[in-house]
Amino acid sequence: MSKTITIYGAISSPYVNRLVLGCKRKKINYELLMPEGGLKSKEFLKINPLGKIPTIKDGNKIIFESGVILEYLDNKYPKTRLIPKSINSATEVRLISAMWENYIVTMLIRLFVQAINPSSDRKKVISDTLDKLNGGLDAIEQYMTPQTFSVGKTFSLADCYAFSALTFLERVEQMLGLESLLGKRKKIKKLWKSIKKEKIVKEVLYDIKEFRKNQ
Amino acid sequence: MSKTITIYGAISSPYVNRLVLGCKRKKINYELLMPEGGLKSKEFLKINPLGKIPTIKDGNKIIFESGVILEYLDNKYPKTRLIPKSINSATEVRLISAMWENYIVTMLIRLFVQAINPSSDRKKVISDTLDKLNGGLDAIEQYMTPQTFSVGKTFSLADCYAFSALTFLERVEQMLGLESLLGKRKKIKKLWKSIKKEKIVKEVLYDIKEFRKNQ
Repeated sequence: MSKTITIYGAISSPYVNRLVLGCKRKKINYELLMPEGGLKSKEFLKINPLGKIPTIKDGNKIIFESGVILEYLDNKYPKTRLIPKSINSATEVRLISAMWENYIVTMLIRLFVQAINPSSDRKKVISDTLDKLNGGLDAIEQYMTPQTFSVGKTFSLADCYAFSALTFLERVEQMLGLESLLGKRKKIKKLWKSIKKEKIVKEVLYDIKEFRKNQ
Repeated sequence: MSKTITIYGAISSPYVNRLVLGCKRKKINYELLMPEGGLKSKEFLKINPLGKIPTIKDGNKIIFESGVILEYLDNKYPKTRLIPKSINSATEVRLISAMWENYIVTMLIRLFVQAINPSSDRKKVISDTLDKLNGGLDAIEQYMTPQTFSVGKTFSLADCYAFSALTFLERVEQMLGLESLLGKRKKIKKLWKSIKKEKIVKEVLYDIKEFRKNQ
């Protein structure tokens, strides 16, 4: 059991909620809070010159970028691993995580921006981005061979990334009034069902819902 | 010494040349080639459903996403490490790598696109992107405490990422006719000088130059 780490961030952010889910899985105690004075305050920019969340404090150590934080925590508190020890499984876990991050979350951010701050060529941006998003979802559907979870029967980092991407995807669907973006992708849909059955996932989903209510 | 791995890709890509540099550092034998029939051919999409480079073949294993490949190679061939064994140094190396990737290369790609395929709001895109790029460079300059290399005196993954970003930055400067984007950032400039002194770096720079001549 670890001492308590501080996570600067808000649970609604996909970068933050994947980390919170990872901490829950690893039974790492955390406090989650937004930096006093905001992300661009002098104080916070001293901690993270990018002014981004999540940023963590573990004792004296300050770390940012969600992927880097998760690798760090998994090495420092290795009892329950998010990244398996076997090189091949670890590579599969990291690869699926990277696909969710680089081809799904990135595209969802663009759609999210169009929902809250539409540009003059909104229609074209949304249509181009949906094409890319669908390409990414197809690639994941083709690449993955999930059993209960993304890689085998054990919950891993790839499931934390899938969680953050799929939660965000449902949010963006709602905001833009889109039909089910997952379509007929059976493997992803089955995986999403399995992930949502986990107690720690239900807890994070509850926290996200409560956070949005108070927005 | 490893058997020869196949890297699908072109040396001019920052995602590819960081990997090639990592292989040289680790003395991993590689052959670098573009997939026959191109990135979106049926054959290549079976290997990588995203149709992206770099993609590697190491025996039967196929891996893509440069960061994932580099983690894999560093674990599989650990003799010369790109990511140090100590958790704290490894975290610093991964964090600086992530900053180059997420805040520099991403912005350079946007500028590169404006150079080869300008949009109607080109001026605004370039100016907004330069602001973000400068923010990223400032953050790296503030965060890093390089000695000879990005982290301490040993060449690491962070130097592979710095190399790919800074080579690309110089290319984009040329293409858009921009002044020195590094400005007065002393730490980055000194680091770039040290990196360029390495024999393996000179070799990759030579390969990039030859590749561009033949374009």
